[in-house]
Amino acid sequence: MVDNFFRPKSVAIIGASANPKKLGNNILVNFKKRFKGKIYPVNLNEDVIEGLKAYKNVTDIKDAVDLAVVVVPANIANRVVEDCSGCGIKSIIIITAGYRESGSEGIILENRLKNIITINNLRVIGPNCIGVLDTYSGVDTIFSPFERMERPKKGKISVISQSGSFGTAFLDWCAQHKMGINKFVSFGNRVDVDECDLVDYFSKDKDTDLVVIYLEGPKNGRELMKNLKKTTKIKPIIVLKAGKSDKGAKAAASHTGTLAGSYKIFSSAMRQVGATEAKTLDELFDFTKVLSKQRAAKGNRVAIITNGGGYGVLSADACFYEGLKLAEFSHSSVETIKKVMPGFAGVHNPLDLIGDATEERFETALATLIKDTNVDIVVVFIWALGTTLDSGVVDVISKIAETSKKPIICGGLGSKYTIDMLLRLENSGIPTFSTPWRAMKAAKVLAEYGKVKKI
Amino acid sequence: MVDNFFRPKSVAIIGASANPKKLGNNILVNFKKRFKGKIYPVNLNEDVIEGLKAYKNVTDIKDAVDLAVVVVPANIANRVVEDCSGCGIKSIIIITAGYRESGSEGIILENRLKNIITINNLRVIGPNCIGVLDTYSGVDTIFSPFERMERPKKGKISVISQSGSFGTAFLDWCAQHKMGINKFVSFGNRVDVDECDLVDYFSKDKDTDLVVIYLEGPKNGRELMKNLKKTTKIKPIIVLKAGKSDKGAKAAASHTGTLAGSYKIFSSAMRQVGATEAKTLDELFDFTKVLSKQRAAKGNRVAIITNGGGYGVLSADACFYEGLKLAEFSHSSVETIKKVMPGFAGVHNPLDLIGDATEERFETALATLIKDTNVDIVVVFIWALGTTLDSGVVDVISKIAETSKKPIICGGLGSKYTIDMLLRLENSGIPTFSTPWRAMKAAKVLAEYGKVKKI
Repeated sequence: MVDNFFRPKSVAIIGASANPKKLGNNILVNFKKRFKGKIYPVNLNEDVIEGLKAYKNVTDIKDAVDLAVVVVPANIANRVVEDCSGCGIKSIIIITAGYRESGSEGIILENRLKNIITINNLRVIGPNCIGVLDTYSGVDTIFSPFERMERPKKGKISVISQSGSFGTAFLDWCAQHKMGINKFVSFGNRVDVDECDLVDYFSKDKDTDLVVIYLEGPKNGRELMKNLKKTTKIKPIIVLKAGKSDKGAKAAASHTGTLAGSYKIFSSAMRQVGATEAKTLDELFDFTKVLSKQRAAKGNRVAIITNGGGYGVLSADACFYEGLKLAEFSHSSVETIKKVMPGFAGVHNPLDLIGDATEERFETALATLIKDTNVDIVVVFIWALGTTLDSGVVDVISKIAETSKKPIICGGLGSKYTIDMLLRLENSGIPTFSTPWRAMKAAKVLAEYGKVKKI
Repeated sequence: MVDNFFRPKSVAIIGASANPKKLGNNILVNFKKRFKGKIYPVNLNEDVIEGLKAYKNVTDIKDAVDLAVVVVPANIANRVVEDCSGCGIKSIIIITAGYRESGSEGIILENRLKNIITINNLRVIGPNCIGVLDTYSGVDTIFSPFERMERPKKGKISVISQSGSFGTAFLDWCAQHKMGINKFVSFGNRVDVDECDLVDYFSKDKDTDLVVIYLEGPKNGRELMKNLKKTTKIKPIIVLKAGKSDKGAKAAASHTGTLAGSYKIFSSAMRQVGATEAKTLDELFDFTKVLSKQRAAKGNRVAIITNGGGYGVLSADACFYEGLKLAEFSHSSVETIKKVMPGFAGVHNPLDLIGDATEERFETALATLIKDTNVDIVVVFIWALGTTLDSGVVDVISKIAETSKKPIICGGLGSKYTIDMLLRLENSGIPTFSTPWRAMKAAKVLAEYGKVKKI
């Protein structure tokens, strides 16, 4: 029944509005842009909204409705949910805020809502949430206008977010970085559908290759662990826990009414079930990028290739602090690479191809090391500001990556010229990072997930 | 005499070339773009290069030359330095590589160079370096073409970098982020001029407000500490140490011939002398931004204002892990802010203005908390994807920041719409960060530097 939230044939938007300043208008407008099914706006005072016939009440709709989106004020939202149930709608997204998160009266409201759900056997996402985005079906309850929040392209990443603001910002970030999204759910107070349901659903969803979760606190820790453990054997899951500290937990309580629980226990549980924990938003973004673009690694022996000596030093440091191993190049690799290097230059890891490196030097180094049996992952950090290396190096790396069974991660730092090169690398499926440490953390994630998947 | 590297009236470029593929051409072309003084290209085989009369030998130049830039191969560079000395040039930048960093023959060459310098009382930057950029005088020995590496605008930040590749990428990053640079020195093998000389120079330089240092290992730790301690009382200094790990130190040795030394000792020394240590490049960028745009804070009590509940939770966590205090708002602040909040919403720190916040709500909150005597720093994290808040909030924040004596830091996460808002904030001098944790780390730097300056 969770499937109904993503692929309904018809949707009622209750609280749809003609006023562009209202959420009920934004949601209707956004639905109209992409949703192929039938849309029924519901509003007491209007006959037509945004060119669609409007209904006074959801009970006035004579056709079957698969999904209801509720955007009315909290004091009438529960009654609307009962109306929905009365006319056979079993899947409901409640955007409305003013429930548990807002104090004692809200708690009473939410408890009543829970009863209505149980008695009528409904499935509800929310309340106090931003709801659902499905890039394929066009379900889009996110009230942010398209000109403020870009919608990401279609893809294989599915997202679960307790926070609506963070969730939408994450989608906006994905859009900007050309990362494809499949399904997105922000469940707010999660009176019913929760992260356990969704992890279970995404574990079986063929269109989802990677699951990203922002969680302030699990609703049912034991069940979540079971579902995560089952899923990480098939596809990677990234989890960011908010509300780690006492004050953070307190903030979570007034945000989504969540009991945040002990972070230490949560963190060690994530390790046990093979989920990838992101400790910061930067990590969440970087890990999403690397796990969506690259395969897991067979081990943690990293080869570093660069033409910027300083990057080699910084990468070696990062390698050490992240607990990765600097690969020992095989004798034959060293001999092959020596042939293309200036006489005075040493060949060791990190491999400094020197500031005057050409794309041919990069090609020999990368093609050799990717085949070296002592190497599990190759990190290439490019200094694009010299004159001997031009953007042809992108084609060289992309071509080798095409047939490589080992992951390749790239990096570079600079403005337009460098950023354009990195973008071209990303377009051919190679994840790129702006600093050596971020690249190395990403490498570690691939090595760790390789252990979980036992590849 | 260090001043001569930045403000020479005339420069000889020895190894200047007509071939655009050669560094000696790139450097000449870049000098020509901005340098107002006289330029003398020196090349054995050319009469005219890039429209300028060329000289066979530096000794053929009859006029006084203030600065020589040497770009000839290592096997003749030392002789060229002697020639320079012979005709009275006392300041020399040696770009040429192939010295100490390249092994035993290079060490012999470098030792000979050292003798030449001592005997003739010269000042030398390099060898194996990228040299000097002065955005005011136009001295620019960076061989990266302008179309690959943007030059930053004029400003008050001066940079010391042992690594050329990192140093140039940092400048390129500054250009992209509209951060103004004053002077830049990459000294590579630092046979003579080192970080101690430069810290001393920048401490007295009225045009420098902030010093940023990338160092693989100090040449003279004790003297450096003395100079840093003296300088941090006047202006902030940020240091990134590379070569922290054994493998990183080894990489540093073959990069700039540096002995990296113990990182633990270095790190605690930095704390002692009041320098701000950046542990990663991301920190280096963020700390540079915040210290160049904001004043130090009187304490570590932070007020967090946001309209995205999730950001409040994440910020509170970051606050805790960074050792900052969540300020206790005064009773009168709470009362004032309550008046503009919806009835059900609580007023506490982090302050969640709720997703439907308007610019007026932000204005009341920020104007109130910036005056609260329990608050030392205000961090504002904006969720710009809703419909009630538009970019007018930028003007509100900028106006309050104009007259505020306490630092304000902003943040936001998203694509074009959000990024444009953040850019406008930065243009009015407010540092912005993409994630709550980065904003909080920046806040911590202001609090720590406040202690050093005893404000």
